[in-house]
Amino acid sequence: MRQALTSISLRTVGPNLYEFTDQVTRWTRSTGIHRGLLTIYIRHTSASLLIQENADPDVRTDLQAFLRRLIPEGDPLYIHTLEGPDDMPAHVKCALSATSLSIPVDDGLPTLGAWQGIYLWEHRRSPHTRKVVLHLLGE
Amino acid sequence: MRQALTSISLRTVGPNLYEFTDQVTRWTRSTGIHRGLLTIYIRHTSASLLIQENADPDVRTDLQAFLRRLIPEGDPLYIHTLEGPDDMPAHVKCALSATSLSIPVDDGLPTLGAWQGIYLWEHRRSPHTRKVVLHLLGE
Amino acid sequence: MRQALTSISLRTVGPNLYEFTDQVTRWTRSTGIHRGLLTIYIRHTSASLLIQENADPDVRTDLQAFLRRLIPEGDPLYIHTLEGPDDMPAHVKCALSATSLSIPVDDGLPTLGAWQGIYLWEHRRSPHTRKVVLHLLGE
Repeated sequence: MRQALTSISLRTVGPNLYEFTDQVTRWTRSTGIHRGLLTIYIRHTSASLLIQENADPDVRTDLQAFLRRLIPEGDPLYIHTLEGPDDMPAHVKCALSATSLSIPVDDGLPTLGAWQGIYLWEHRRSPHTRKVVLHLLGE
Repeated sequence: MRQALTSISLRTVGPNLYEFTDQVTRWTRSTGIHRGLLTIYIRHTSASLLIQENADPDVRTDLQAFLRRLIPEGDPLYIHTLEGPDDMPAHVKCALSATSLSIPVDDGLPTLGAWQGIYLWEHRRSPHTRKVVLHLLGE
Repeated sequence: MRQALTSISLRTVGPNLYEFTDQVTRWTRSTGIHRGLLTIYIRHTSASLLIQENADPDVRTDLQAFLRRLIPEGDPLYIHTLEGPDDMPAHVKCALSATSLSIPVDDGLPTLGAWQGIYLWEHRRSPHTRKVVLHLLGE
């Protein structure tokens, strides 16, 4: 049994779903670990992680639209407004989505379903560099 | 330290919470691993996983009712409507719930609380066979 | 490769975010495991876990206010009202947040971002003692 750990940086340019499945898959292969547990962890509180359909891009468009309506900017409820109108909604979106993902690995690959992609879910408007930790434990 | 991995199929017949705690517990016991980390992973983007109260069934009824009102079918917001009025709501529900669960194992059993059950949360109307991966790493 | 497991109790006095980052960090250090995977698991269905900003306390205030409005007490939708008006909302909040957190550990510490804190998210009004399991696997 052994483990591998790396940190990757992902550039974002506004609220969206950024797929990085290939990067995760390539790194998993590169470790030589063929069976084990993969953990993906994002080191931020205004961007999150998501496993979602990677077939029809309309799914991501609709998901963004739904969240924007459910957790709108400029909500008079908020007192934390210093960092911009998109900051507090970003924190709420993070609280309702995932900071870490756990995916078993078999035959050297994450056991993703046929339509599943791994996404960084950016909730802020301005460009960011997001740090994501990948950890794999297995043999 | 060693690991075990299996894939199970769960049949669903419409939106509901389907408990499969017993199946998980039985498999955990069968591995002979008495302490470790159990990961449950669902390979879909329109059904999710949930740990929820397994005492009063009204809790599940209310949870379903709440989500149905919060994320209704036929929302004019959606452009992804090709796969039916329940498809896009299913994707949103998945984005707001869990695709993977991590549960420490001790004394050969998942360390569930007294009232916790493990559920597959189906969000689609038509019958489905859902694939769930179980992974256990420990000794 | 080896593992450590412990169970901690956290006292809560009403709906709030209770930070316990220090407790997790101290325990991680105490295990002597410098690289691995940390899992935090809460054994309840009316309180959850959250990684959130620990800088401006207003963020937590706003997050609480948002959730209270989104998932209000006394919702006529609910039939499960026997355990009090705050019980069913607590279950819904749990379903939309995390029961387990997975954090890679490096250099003897959880790889938290600069502004990330680990919180117990209490959703019930009356005082509770919440049981949380910590598990660390690594070397």
